[in-house]
Amino acid sequence: MMFESMNWMDLERYLTHDDRIVVITGACEQHGYVSLLSDILAPVEIAKAACAQEGVLIAPPLPFGISPYFVTYPGTISLRPETFAGVVRELLAGLAAQGFRRFLVSNGHGGNTGVLVPVLVELGNAYPQARFDLFQWWTHPDVVRAGEELGLTQRHANWSENFTFTRVRPVPAGEKPPVSLPRTASAAATRLGLGDGNYGGPYQAPDEAMARFFAAAVDAMVAALHAL
Amino acid sequence: MMFESMNWMDLERYLTHDDRIVVITGACEQHGYVSLLSDILAPVEIAKAACAQEGVLIAPPLPFGISPYFVTYPGTISLRPETFAGVVRELLAGLAAQGFRRFLVSNGHGGNTGVLVPVLVELGNAYPQARFDLFQWWTHPDVVRAGEELGLTQRHANWSENFTFTRVRPVPAGEKPPVSLPRTASAAATRLGLGDGNYGGPYQAPDEAMARFFAAAVDAMVAALHAL
Amino acid sequence: MMFESMNWMDLERYLTHDDRIVVITGACEQHGYVSLLSDILAPVEIAKAACAQEGVLIAPPLPFGISPYFVTYPGTISLRPETFAGVVRELLAGLAAQGFRRFLVSNGHGGNTGVLVPVLVELGNAYPQARFDLFQWWTHPDVVRAGEELGLTQRHANWSENFTFTRVRPVPAGEKPPVSLPRTASAAATRLGLGDGNYGGPYQAPDEAMARFFAAAVDAMVAALHAL
Amino acid sequence: MMFESMNWMDLERYLTHDDRIVVITGACEQHGYVSLLSDILAPVEIAKAACAQEGVLIAPPLPFGISPYFVTYPGTISLRPETFAGVVRELLAGLAAQGFRRFLVSNGHGGNTGVLVPVLVELGNAYPQARFDLFQWWTHPDVVRAGEELGLTQRHANWSENFTFTRVRPVPAGEKPPVSLPRTASAAATRLGLGDGNYGGPYQAPDEAMARFFAAAVDAMVAALHAL
Amino acid sequence: MMFESMNWMDLERYLTHDDRIVVITGACEQHGYVSLLSDILAPVEIAKAACAQEGVLIAPPLPFGISPYFVTYPGTISLRPETFAGVVRELLAGLAAQGFRRFLVSNGHGGNTGVLVPVLVELGNAYPQARFDLFQWWTHPDVVRAGEELGLTQRHANWSENFTFTRVRPVPAGEKPPVSLPRTASAAATRLGLGDGNYGGPYQAPDEAMARFFAAAVDAMVAALHAL
Amino acid sequence: MMFESMNWMDLERYLTHDDRIVVITGACEQHGYVSLLSDILAPVEIAKAACAQEGVLIAPPLPFGISPYFVTYPGTISLRPETFAGVVRELLAGLAAQGFRRFLVSNGHGGNTGVLVPVLVELGNAYPQARFDLFQWWTHPDVVRAGEELGLTQRHANWSENFTFTRVRPVPAGEKPPVSLPRTASAAATRLGLGDGNYGGPYQAPDEAMARFFAAAVDAMVAALHAL
Repeated sequence: MMFESMNWMDLERYLTHDDRIVVITGACEQHGYVSLLSDILAPVEIAKAACAQEGVLIAPPLPFGISPYFVTYPGTISLRPETFAGVVRELLAGLAAQGFRRFLVSNGHGGNTGVLVPVLVELGNAYPQARFDLFQWWTHPDVVRAGEELGLTQRHANWSENFTFTRVRPVPAGEKPPVSLPRTASAAATRLGLGDGNYGGPYQAPDEAMARFFAAAVDAMVAALHAL
Repeated sequence: MMFESMNWMDLERYLTHDDRIVVITGACEQHGYVSLLSDILAPVEIAKAACAQEGVLIAPPLPFGISPYFVTYPGTISLRPETFAGVVRELLAGLAAQGFRRFLVSNGHGGNTGVLVPVLVELGNAYPQARFDLFQWWTHPDVVRAGEELGLTQRHANWSENFTFTRVRPVPAGEKPPVSLPRTASAAATRLGLGDGNYGGPYQAPDEAMARFFAAAVDAMVAALHAL
Repeated sequence: MMFESMNWMDLERYLTHDDRIVVITGACEQHGYVSLLSDILAPVEIAKAACAQEGVLIAPPLPFGISPYFVTYPGTISLRPETFAGVVRELLAGLAAQGFRRFLVSNGHGGNTGVLVPVLVELGNAYPQARFDLFQWWTHPDVVRAGEELGLTQRHANWSENFTFTRVRPVPAGEKPPVSLPRTASAAATRLGLGDGNYGGPYQAPDEAMARFFAAAVDAMVAALHAL
Repeated sequence: MMFESMNWMDLERYLTHDDRIVVITGACEQHGYVSLLSDILAPVEIAKAACAQEGVLIAPPLPFGISPYFVTYPGTISLRPETFAGVVRELLAGLAAQGFRRFLVSNGHGGNTGVLVPVLVELGNAYPQARFDLFQWWTHPDVVRAGEELGLTQRHANWSENFTFTRVRPVPAGEKPPVSLPRTASAAATRLGLGDGNYGGPYQAPDEAMARFFAAAVDAMVAALHAL
Repeated sequence: MMFESMNWMDLERYLTHDDRIVVITGACEQHGYVSLLSDILAPVEIAKAACAQEGVLIAPPLPFGISPYFVTYPGTISLRPETFAGVVRELLAGLAAQGFRRFLVSNGHGGNTGVLVPVLVELGNAYPQARFDLFQWWTHPDVVRAGEELGLTQRHANWSENFTFTRVRPVPAGEKPPVSLPRTASAAATRLGLGDGNYGGPYQAPDEAMARFFAAAVDAMVAALHAL
Repeated sequence: MMFESMNWMDLERYLTHDDRIVVITGACEQHGYVSLLSDILAPVEIAKAACAQEGVLIAPPLPFGISPYFVTYPGTISLRPETFAGVVRELLAGLAAQGFRRFLVSNGHGGNTGVLVPVLVELGNAYPQARFDLFQWWTHPDVVRAGEELGLTQRHANWSENFTFTRVRPVPAGEKPPVSLPRTASAAATRLGLGDGNYGGPYQAPDEAMARFFAAAVDAMVAALHAL
């Protein structure tokens, strides 16, 4: 139920029986050896699986987020907080004006969270008849637990973002010691300290482990859609 | 050569031998019977074909444009001119800071053109060592001529946007009389006057005609990439 | 019926029997040998003639538009798209709040069009009881035809902008070969390629030809005022 | 030496021997019985006279200022402070980039002053080689003194703004008691308390008195041009 | 009655019997030998005394204002006019939404006035049921008169801002000749011409004189609170 | 070492031997029974203690943050993310231009974090010679551990924000069950679900426990000042 395979008449029909919609935000930024668009690909694949079960619409993902710490890595595209906030506001307000009422904003990138939250609250204040929930697969308790059951720690660009659909090249074997950087390190300092972009841990987990990890995310999203 | 199948190291290598990049803008708006994302799907498919020949990178498309006249059709998402300008500026300036020098902005939506042009000129004034060209497949003389050779007129949401990859449902047979609306008609007036969203003409052309039409667009883009 | 020769009481009286108003936008930019303010002088003179027939009010013209490509020519003053949009929005919304309902925005500069259109549509969406029409004398079919009947092609700063009221110096005899530049050429590249500022064609047409050309514009505007 | 009677070549020549320019700001707002554009007409006529003596250029006046208190009077057009600041910044920065160095901003409207001052200081901080002076004819000590010598007090829309070139209708005989309103009164409260728009005093002074008053303003401006 | 010694329940109770609130703006900028925060300390102390009499609430002061002319003096923090306007608008609109109706904006810094006035008028236009008055202690006629009775002239950073609560170091004996600078002098020119930051006059007045001066300000503010 | 007890000359002297500065952000928002300004009072008191040891300057705190979820509680003042970002950017960039190089931004309010981080990173990218660190006392590992040693859990408006200097009224005895609300709940839903404003746990801890908790915060900040 992606917009690209629908026309406006399909949406008008949809609105006669449902008013939920998934809006995906993410980032285009370095993810070490895996895809520059991992923060979009992951929420998109999870949403496709969850929305197929629930018959819920998915709006076109916004592929750019707030990533100023990584702009020294080619391919990282970072919006300023106000620009990101502006796009999200106009996107959600526009859909609210067309009759959508229950929004699940599925955000794939941690750098967006702190701007998304106040924007969603403001929208909730402005549209009392609507509801704007935030879903972040990778911080959901069930997904975190699924990671822990694999005996692995989630970190940026490590195994936890290396799905079959984000893997673009072979990754190094073994694992990397955790990298710790000040939260507000500049992009130059970040590249110096972070090297290949992985914040530490194994570069890859077995495919069947990843399948369980992914399934936990899908289940969590299905539950979030029910709870809307 | 889409970002989604590349990591940052791939881009760093690319920048050692090329500095061209294609940046795609479009719209998420009603296109009658065809896909809400036709204005993205068309430039993406054309760019994939052209860039495969030329080995040029394609940045993630911005799927939202300036479409205030269609917001009465569900699924149309419209940004204000300043929001659209902001995203495009930060996207292009960010890539320029990473070493890209020759930009081909492939815009799939007419409503964006009048904002894109001044933004690209301003960027050219600010980055004298870079070049920001605009490519619009559907207004390119060679593509217009290809349409005329089919004996057909290009109009929003008619045959000219009905490719195999934008078709989501069967379309009506036959053709629709041309619709003429004031350029600044409100969204309410537009829906009243435009009905199904097609501005007139046949809803569909034969697939082989569309293949020739598409090929003209690809050839035009290849030439634009050479001319950068 | 220009604001400068009226006081607020005149306007209050006017609003008891009419709710139309002409709002003029244009540019302050190089026009080769003719006035830097040609894009204001032309719509002003045309509006004066048309509004005298119709008894319609003319608001003070905004003399600055979007002209980033010409900033290398002294005297060109260019606003960013968002600044131009902001002024136009506040100007029109302010007049709408005072009771004006039928707006004819007469724009004298092509660089403004792509920002004006979405702004006027958004205003129409926000003020359903009002109407915001765009009039551009130089692209009006009747005016284009009048130019063609003179056997001449309209281009920036050539004969078609050389009226008795925009002529400030003698212009070169003869004509200039057409200049073709990429639409997004930077201001430096534009000056290099464009030289004196005329995009090609005769520098001047006979005065009586210009009178017919001007009259076509006035007639077109009168019709646009009727159609409001 | 107004832009409208010059082309870009004239300005390029001018810049070889002078780098001064007058930039006029004002307002389009109720002025009781006199012209809605009095705050533009006065600085324009004064500048024309002063600049004719000094051979200094005059840029096109920005006809809209900050007048929220008068929006209940038809014909008052008010920009928000940020919009006004934006236009002034881009206008002056653009001219500074073309080689102008000594700016005399002649502001005809008191409501603009508090925004103009910080904008001009910021520009002076950003362009250390340039100078941005503010001239306000009606508050200049010599002009105030000239008014006092007439035995009259300057107030909005009274005799002091009633020049032959701002008078559009006969004005009432006699004078009006001074009106005192809180500085931040809303537009509704202002109209209620202010009635015809004159803040008090005679509606008109003898033409020869006005000629002396005007001459004082011109002399003051000539001195300001010398002092640049 | 400062927010810092209250909780939200206190405010909810307050709103059942009063709807007045004092909002303080000022500056953090050089004041010669006295405190960098003199423009906050003075209105705060005056408000505390006045509001204690009247039982009126005082919102947390915004400690940053518009001071571009002093940024060459360490410790001066200057906001752009649009940033200052934005904070003030959101602060006042937020309180208006919670039930406050009569606002006394007590501004301690002259550089803010010209932006505050239009913002307060706009708010009055937007919230017809509320009232936004401006109080500036140092320009109030009764306070000016109190200064004149001391035989002293108020100027930035001279005796008139040297209260026991703004004095941070011993000040020079005697007085300084008045300094006159163009109103739009850049920060560099200002520091060059102004030296220690005092615009002229005695650095200090006797404490009992200052007590009378302060008392005049408190009385004026009490009257302003009554007049709301 | 607060600005209010210093003049510009003090700062100029300071800059000859140190270039560190503490910048405090927080919020004015409901904190249940304790002060509306708890998120300012806590970082201010901690900074005073830490900076007294280190001899480091403290800039005037910005008392307003991002708190849209609490605007239904009187006294909560919330800025939009872009307004907050603008103030912080101008404040820090202004100090950087005056010679400060090592910034410790001590943020007392969780709702600000997600906007502060990208703003600080952008500033670090723009000023490579400066460093912008973020300190948040309440999330510092040593402070969290100190809380755990008390056997208590930190939650908004519970014991952990009830210091002697934030307590304004007696608080209820005992403790409240933890409240769990969706992160993006609207202000109306938040008030409904949250009642008195405490997110759960004891309303107060013994004073000597609070003294140890506070000391841990001071020590952590001293360490952060060393690490700058």
